[in-house]
Amino acid sequence: MSRPVARAGAAPLASAGGWLRVVGLGPGSAGLLAPEAAEAFRDADDLIGYFPYVEMAVRLAGPLRATLHASDNRVEMERARHAFALAASGRKVVVVSSGDPGIFAMATAVIEALHAECVSAGEHAAAWQAVDVGIVPGISAAQAAASRVGAPLGHDFCVLSLSDNLKPWEVIERRLELAATADLVLALYNPISKARPWQLGRAFDLLRRHLPATTPVVLGRDIGRPAERLVVSTLGEVTPEQVDMRTVVIVGSSQTRAFPRGDGATWVYTPRWYDEAGDGEVLSNDEGSPT
Amino acid sequence: MSRPVARAGAAPLASAGGWLRVVGLGPGSAGLLAPEAAEAFRDADDLIGYFPYVEMAVRLAGPLRATLHASDNRVEMERARHAFALAASGRKVVVVSSGDPGIFAMATAVIEALHAECVSAGEHAAAWQAVDVGIVPGISAAQAAASRVGAPLGHDFCVLSLSDNLKPWEVIERRLELAATADLVLALYNPISKARPWQLGRAFDLLRRHLPATTPVVLGRDIGRPAERLVVSTLGEVTPEQVDMRTVVIVGSSQTRAFPRGDGATWVYTPRWYDEAGDGEVLSNDEGSPT
Repeated sequence: MSRPVARAGAAPLASAGGWLRVVGLGPGSAGLLAPEAAEAFRDADDLIGYFPYVEMAVRLAGPLRATLHASDNRVEMERARHAFALAASGRKVVVVSSGDPGIFAMATAVIEALHAECVSAGEHAAAWQAVDVGIVPGISAAQAAASRVGAPLGHDFCVLSLSDNLKPWEVIERRLELAATADLVLALYNPISKARPWQLGRAFDLLRRHLPATTPVVLGRDIGRPAERLVVSTLGEVTPEQVDMRTVVIVGSSQTRAFPRGDGATWVYTPRWYDEAGDGEVLSNDEGSPT
Repeated sequence: MSRPVARAGAAPLASAGGWLRVVGLGPGSAGLLAPEAAEAFRDADDLIGYFPYVEMAVRLAGPLRATLHASDNRVEMERARHAFALAASGRKVVVVSSGDPGIFAMATAVIEALHAECVSAGEHAAAWQAVDVGIVPGISAAQAAASRVGAPLGHDFCVLSLSDNLKPWEVIERRLELAATADLVLALYNPISKARPWQLGRAFDLLRRHLPATTPVVLGRDIGRPAERLVVSTLGEVTPEQVDMRTVVIVGSSQTRAFPRGDGATWVYTPRWYDEAGDGEVLSNDEGSPT
């Protein structure tokens, strides 16, 4: 079934001019913030989000005329409902996420809140369905970290959250096991926190059973932000103590290579070809398809 | 081992002011082109890439003063070597990719070319290692398609190229099988081409053995460009004939949901929680980690 495309810029159903945009900050530098995101921040009447991200939006795109609604984390659904309530009343509302709002971030919560209201035939269902909702994507943390170190995500990869707040740890272990069996590069989000201290060590142990100790591991913390820190290590050497909740962890596949760069740092990349076929022949990997 | 970060903006080793940037266009709209990417296009002496991407860079960031080196596809390594030769001679060189250059695109080819020259102790190794190389990430096709339809990549997912030009088809089938067993959402790049007509049908058949016919499937073609087309279908209904090489295909997991949106189109999202644990409790998925 072919569906007409709802463009972020169009507002056919906006109630009294209100709209709701879920907007990604990207990694956190103005140079990597999409112009469409900056425009949404500046057009907004209300800016809703986890307080460090609201601050970051002001820093990157400000001064903003929006009323700021900064909240603590762990209240995604409340934020989403608040955003719908404001937009349905005719206000221009931005919900802000770091990175890409579509990857472990607020876009899911916003759509989930709408779905829950519709499924339960909630009192706001009709009004919320009439809101013009759009999502502005952004560059996610794994992409920013990858760009600093070469191209570790240059071939097939898997993006996993290690948080067992919302899914059982057994599901996470099973996914790690299968992804490693498939020899996929892994980008691990939410790798560790005070409430989840042991999970990352378990994940590294599991991966060590599948991959050689020399497998490159990239730790990217606050990439694109002033305190940016990048560490290139190996699966044999990396420890959970090197990682905190602001770090994205990239673990290579059997194909991922590391070599010294001219400035003393390390390049890491995953070749476009797979070793079993890799005869060095120069062929296209993309044939002009969108990437 | 902790390494100093090489910032894209720094040029400690540039030979006579030359540099090499591998730059992502994003989906293809000016509103989603990173300012850092636009700046690189405008600063460049030379712009190298597959011809539709060179044209797109001119359209999005032009007028450009750069000499344009547009080539056909399937010549990634030649392009990379050409870029190093120009940059080593002191020129400011941009290699352009669509989407994110780090995802099935030119960043890998550029780093691979450098590695090959170093490993073989080629005559240019020292000069190329002295070039200031940086990568400017972009929003990839799957992210753009996801943003149009809701949040299908809102939970764990896997990014696979279906092209068997550079890896055996058996590896691709095995990865599809394992990713489906892991119940990951799939973003499929390079899904089909004239030279690879049957692979996508085989992939759909394989996935149908693991997932219900009602599983949402999103087809995004030229998202962010004037001819943008978005189709929401199901694994039971989708056919390879609906897909071409400019389409990215997103196949949901068992958790992915679809529901009607107010404008007649369809929302698709993957909840933040996994069904086995899903009691609707409101908890954070991210705890403030970068996304």
